[in-house]
Amino acid sequence: MPTTLETLDDRIREVADLRHAADLIEWDERVCMPAGGAPVHGEMQATVRRLAHEKFTATEVGDLLGRAADEIRNSDPDSREARRLAVTARDYRKATQVPASYVAEHSAVVSAAQHAWAEARQASDFGAFRPHLEKVIALKRQYVGFFPGSAHPYDVLLDDYEPGMTTADVKAVFDVVRPRQVALIQAIAARPPVDDAVLRQPFSQTALLQFSVEVASAFGFDWTRGRQDTSTHPFASAIGRDDVRITTRFMDRYPFSLLFGTLHETGHALYEQGVGRAHHRTQLEGGASLGVHESQSRLWENLVARSRPFWEHFYPVLQARVPDQLSTVPLDRFYNAINKVEPSLIRVEADEATYNLHVMMRVELEIALVEGRLDAAGLPDAWNRLMDEYLGVRPPDDATGVLQDIHWSAGLLGYFATYTLGNLISAQLWERFEAVHPARDADIRRGDFSPLLAWLRTEVHQHGRMFEPQDLVRRATGSPVDPGPYLRYLERKFGEIYGL
Amino acid sequence: MPTTLETLDDRIREVADLRHAADLIEWDERVCMPAGGAPVHGEMQATVRRLAHEKFTATEVGDLLGRAADEIRNSDPDSREARRLAVTARDYRKATQVPASYVAEHSAVVSAAQHAWAEARQASDFGAFRPHLEKVIALKRQYVGFFPGSAHPYDVLLDDYEPGMTTADVKAVFDVVRPRQVALIQAIAARPPVDDAVLRQPFSQTALLQFSVEVASAFGFDWTRGRQDTSTHPFASAIGRDDVRITTRFMDRYPFSLLFGTLHETGHALYEQGVGRAHHRTQLEGGASLGVHESQSRLWENLVARSRPFWEHFYPVLQARVPDQLSTVPLDRFYNAINKVEPSLIRVEADEATYNLHVMMRVELEIALVEGRLDAAGLPDAWNRLMDEYLGVRPPDDATGVLQDIHWSAGLLGYFATYTLGNLISAQLWERFEAVHPARDADIRRGDFSPLLAWLRTEVHQHGRMFEPQDLVRRATGSPVDPGPYLRYLERKFGEIYGL
Repeated sequence: MPTTLETLDDRIREVADLRHAADLIEWDERVCMPAGGAPVHGEMQATVRRLAHEKFTATEVGDLLGRAADEIRNSDPDSREARRLAVTARDYRKATQVPASYVAEHSAVVSAAQHAWAEARQASDFGAFRPHLEKVIALKRQYVGFFPGSAHPYDVLLDDYEPGMTTADVKAVFDVVRPRQVALIQAIAARPPVDDAVLRQPFSQTALLQFSVEVASAFGFDWTRGRQDTSTHPFASAIGRDDVRITTRFMDRYPFSLLFGTLHETGHALYEQGVGRAHHRTQLEGGASLGVHESQSRLWENLVARSRPFWEHFYPVLQARVPDQLSTVPLDRFYNAINKVEPSLIRVEADEATYNLHVMMRVELEIALVEGRLDAAGLPDAWNRLMDEYLGVRPPDDATGVLQDIHWSAGLLGYFATYTLGNLISAQLWERFEAVHPARDADIRRGDFSPLLAWLRTEVHQHGRMFEPQDLVRRATGSPVDPGPYLRYLERKFGEIYGL
Repeated sequence: MPTTLETLDDRIREVADLRHAADLIEWDERVCMPAGGAPVHGEMQATVRRLAHEKFTATEVGDLLGRAADEIRNSDPDSREARRLAVTARDYRKATQVPASYVAEHSAVVSAAQHAWAEARQASDFGAFRPHLEKVIALKRQYVGFFPGSAHPYDVLLDDYEPGMTTADVKAVFDVVRPRQVALIQAIAARPPVDDAVLRQPFSQTALLQFSVEVASAFGFDWTRGRQDTSTHPFASAIGRDDVRITTRFMDRYPFSLLFGTLHETGHALYEQGVGRAHHRTQLEGGASLGVHESQSRLWENLVARSRPFWEHFYPVLQARVPDQLSTVPLDRFYNAINKVEPSLIRVEADEATYNLHVMMRVELEIALVEGRLDAAGLPDAWNRLMDEYLGVRPPDDATGVLQDIHWSAGLLGYFATYTLGNLISAQLWERFEAVHPARDADIRRGDFSPLLAWLRTEVHQHGRMFEPQDLVRRATGSPVDPGPYLRYLERKFGEIYGL
C-alpha cells in the first residue's frame, strides 16, 4: 500500500516527464527544427505543456498535498521529504491561484507584444510598442492581485523567479552596490583606456570552439550527459540532470563571445548536471532560482575564466591554437583586453564592471511601473536619464535604448534583478570557497578545477530546488545575499588593471 | 455549436500532437541524445505514448465515433470525412480490442527477447534465443485470438502493417514471383560474374554525402520541411508532414550504401512531405501502409537511382566529386557494378534481384509458425533448407542465418511481407507512370524528376492513410497488387546486364 506521499510522487513524475518532453521540443525548435516545422512544433508544445499544467493543477493533487502534509507532520522540516512536499505545495498554490482565463489572455497579449516589439525595435519607434507594453503592465498589476498580502506588489513578480526574495531585500542590496559601482566606473573612465585591438582580429571560429570545448571539459562538463550545438542565441537546457545541452554562436564582430558564451552556458550546465539524482522527476529538480543559476554561469564565465590564474594556465594553450593572432601578444595585454571596462548602451554586450548598472536601472524602472509612479509613456525619458546618471552614456535612439531587451514584451517583469543577484551570489561563493580552500587560485593556475566543482556540487548543485535562494546562500556562505564580496572583488580586480 | 465530427477531430488532434512529440523524442534518442540520457528519454517516451494511447482509446472517443457515423451517414463513402471517420473507427477498434494486460506482457516479453537475441546472435547460438522466441510466438497466437473471424490467423498480424491485405492475397502474389525470381537468379549464376571492384575503393564519405544531398534535392526533398543527419541505422521520421527527417550512415566496407541508403530514406520522406495538409493531425496522416511506404523508398532508390537514365545524367557529376576513384571508370562498368547480382546470406545486404527471396522465405516460415505447422525448434533447419532452395547458399552458422534479423525478437511478425509488397507496388507505379508519361526516361536523363514526383503526389502521397493499400494501388494503376510489372522489370533489366 503506497503512502500518500508516494502516490503524490507518482503523479508528479508524470508531470515531470511531460515537462521534460516540452523542454526537449523547445531545444529541438531552437537547434534542429527546419523552418517549416514551426507550426507542428507549436502544436506539440502547446498540447504537452497544457497537459503538464492540467495534471499538475488537478484537484487530486491538492487533496494529496493536504493528506501528505498530515502524514509527515512529525518529520524534520529540512528533510528531503518535507522540503519536497513544501516546494510542491508552494508551486501548486501559485499555479492554481491564477485563473485559466488570465493565462490565456496573457499568452495572447505577449505573443502580439513580442511581434510588435521586434518591429518597433527595427524601426526604433517606441510609440509603436507602447500600447502593447501598457497592456503587459496592466496584466502584471492584475497578476499581483491574485496574490494578496505581499508587502510590496513587486514582491509577487520577483517571487516567480527568486522564491522568497522580497523587493525590500533587493533594494537594500542594490542601494549598497549602486553608488560604489558608479564610483568605480567613474574612476576607471578617468584612466587611460585599455587597448583591446588584439581581440578584434579575425580568429578561426573552429579553433576557438575547440578551445571552448577543452575548457568546458576541464571545468567538468560531463559529455556522456550533455552535448553542445550552435543556435542563434546561446542557451542551456536540461532534459533532467542526465541530458543537459548547451549552445553557442559565432559572432564575427566579437569572436571571443563564443568562448565566454560557451563557458557561461557551461556554468548553467554544471549546475543542472550536479542536481541530486534523488530530485529527478520531482518538483525539486533544476536550479533553486534564476539568480542562483546565474551565479553559477557567472562564476565560471567571469570569476574563473576572466581571472589571471586561469589564463596563466590556459593562455599558452590558446596561443597554440591561434598562433597567428596571439603568439606575440603578452599575457598581460590579453588579460587586460578581455577585462576592458567601457560604459556602453547595450546590456548584453556590457563588461563585468558595468553590467550591474544596466540591470539595476531596469529594476528601478520596473518597480516604478508596478507601483504606478511611472507609466509606459514616460519610460524612454526615464531610461535615458538613468543611463546618463549611472553610466554616463545616452542612447541616440529607442532601438539602442528602451527597446533593446525582449523581456518586457515577453511579460518577464521581475526577471532582470536575477542577473545582478547572480553576480553577487557568485562572488559570495567565490570568497567563501577561498576561505575553506586557500589553494583555490593555485589549483586554477594548474588547470585543476575539481576542488571548486566538488565544493559547488556539495554546497549548491546537489540541492536542486530544495532550499529557497536566501536560505541556500546562507547555508553555503554563512550569510544571506550580501553585496560585500562582489564589491571587494570588482574593486580589487579593476583597481589592479586600471591602477586605481 | 461544433458537430460531433468536429468534436472528435479535436480529440484526435490532441492524440496526434502527443504522437508527434513521441516521434520527435525517438528521433532525438537515435540522433542527438547523449548516452546518459537514455533513462530520462525512456521515461518521457513511455509517459507520452501512454497518454496518447489513453486519450485515443477513451470511451468518449468510442461514443463520438458512433454518433459521428450517424451524422454523416448520407455522405459519399469515399469523401474525406467518411474515410477519416472510417479509418479512425478501424484504428479505435483495433486499439481497444487488445487488453492492457496483454500490451504490458508483450512489452516485457519483447524487451527481454531483444536482449536475448542480441546476445544469442553475438554467440551465434539459436538455442539461447529459442525460449524467448517461443514466448513471442505464443503471444502472437494469443493476439490473433483477440480478432476472431479472420479467414486465416496470419491475416490478423498482416493487417497491422498492411490494412486489408490477406494471407491469401500475399500467397497468390508470392506464388507467382517465387519461381520466376529463382529461375532468374539461377540464369544469372550461370553467367560470368560482374566485377564491382570499382565500388570497393576508398571513397571520401564527405564527397558521397554531398552528392547524395544533391540527388535528394533533385528528387524534390524539401529542406525547409526536413533535415538530414547521421545515425547508426538509417531511418526516416515524420513529425507530421512539415518536419520530415532522414538519417544516413557511413560504412567503410560498402561506401555506396551511404548514397543508396540516403535515397531510400529520401523516398520515404518524399511520401511524408507529400501527404495532404488536410490530413495533418488526423488518423489519415502518414503513409497508407508499410508496403506502400516501401514502394516509395524502393522506387527512388532502385527504379530511379539504379537505372541507366539516372546515371547518364548523374555519373559525370559523381565523377567530378570523386575523380581519383571514378574518372577513368566508364559508365557501363559503374552501372553494372551497382547492379551486381550475387546470392548472399544477409537480407539487408542483398541486391535488387535476390532481395525478395530473402523476404518470401521469412514470410513462409512465419505463416508456418502461426499455423503451428512449424515450431521454434525446427526453425534453423527450415531456414537453411529454404536458403539453399531459393538462393543456393547455406548459412554456416545461426548468426548469419536464422538470427540475423531483429524483427521476431521485437514481436514484429507479419512485417516482412511489406518489403516485397513494396517492391511489387513500386514497379506497378513505375510502369503505370510511363504509360501516362512516356517521356519518363527522357526526363530522368535530363535530371528532371518533377513530373514523376508530381504524379506520385497526386496518385499516392496526398491521400495519406485515406485508402487501404489494395484500393490505393487500384486507383493509381488500375489493378490491385500485381507481380507482373516487377517481374517484367527485373527480367528486362538483369537480362540486359547479364546478357540472358
